[in-house]
Amino acid sequence: MKKLEEYVRTIPDFPEPGIMFRDVTSVLQDADGFALAVDTMLDQVKDLEFDAICGAEARGFLFGAAMAYKLHKPILLARKKGKLPCETVSQTYDLEYGQATIEMHKDTVKPGWKVLLVDDLMATGGTLEAMVKLTEKLGGKPVGVSVLMELKGLKGRAKIEDMGCPVFAAISYDGK
Amino acid sequence: MKKLEEYVRTIPDFPEPGIMFRDVTSVLQDADGFALAVDTMLDQVKDLEFDAICGAEARGFLFGAAMAYKLHKPILLARKKGKLPCETVSQTYDLEYGQATIEMHKDTVKPGWKVLLVDDLMATGGTLEAMVKLTEKLGGKPVGVSVLMELKGLKGRAKIEDMGCPVFAAISYDGK
Repeated sequence: MKKLEEYVRTIPDFPEPGIMFRDVTSVLQDADGFALAVDTMLDQVKDLEFDAICGAEARGFLFGAAMAYKLHKPILLARKKGKLPCETVSQTYDLEYGQATIEMHKDTVKPGWKVLLVDDLMATGGTLEAMVKLTEKLGGKPVGVSVLMELKGLKGRAKIEDMGCPVFAAISYDGK
Repeated sequence: MKKLEEYVRTIPDFPEPGIMFRDVTSVLQDADGFALAVDTMLDQVKDLEFDAICGAEARGFLFGAAMAYKLHKPILLARKKGKLPCETVSQTYDLEYGQATIEMHKDTVKPGWKVLLVDDLMATGGTLEAMVKLTEKLGGKPVGVSVLMELKGLKGRAKIEDMGCPVFAAISYDGK
């Protein structure tokens, strides 16, 4: 049986020299790869108690929704600015160049809900850190972060775990 | 048991007077609502044979991924311009004001694959029409369109079915 890592296509020197780009679409477009990815992520959080999953736009939606469906949980959305139709709370965070803002609907986290935060990739952890803060602003408790891939050289894990939220990564890459 | 329609929050006169905005997040953020939505969409395509599901960015990813995971199928991505890292084919289509372009990776449809196209909402059908064309450009056969909601007044169904692709909608709304 192929290992999960073997489904990930790596594009060297993209988008710039020295960066090994990890392409998640090669996992998704293989039935065995996608199932193994979701099952591995589910297995890593099997001892965690939570009421809902929050997926990060856009690729976090793919893993978050499959996990939520399997566990019969709600799937909440953390979207880019201006995409949600009702009242939102927002959180701005730093990118390598500039800033980005994500938003969640004000009514999406029920009081006291424990929430698992899901994305495809954790790099610097900026998006996930913003999701932790948004979940707390909304009266929920972020109880874990689940990602398919982690780039350990960018130290996102420490940032999230320092906020009291354990990180689960199905694949960990050294470097950036 | 609540009916699927009852999970959809409707926002009158949004984004402009006369429009009844159908908000899919109210379905997603309820465990029973999300499960019922995915199960209804799966049931509607149960007699269709296909090799892969293609989801439309971003909300189509949520339903497409859950369906693909349940059926052990690949989930292919139709993304907004500039979001996919490898070589793509693209298709431009008309919006009410202006145009939009979506792209798929050149290697994502295997030769002869039958593909089910998934989105949350069919309005004028522009996005789904573009996905039909992209799938064909890539050597695949689009065998059906599955959406959670259809706005019948915008006549998207005829546009897609005239291309030989049946449309399945879990909820059909009269009007726009």
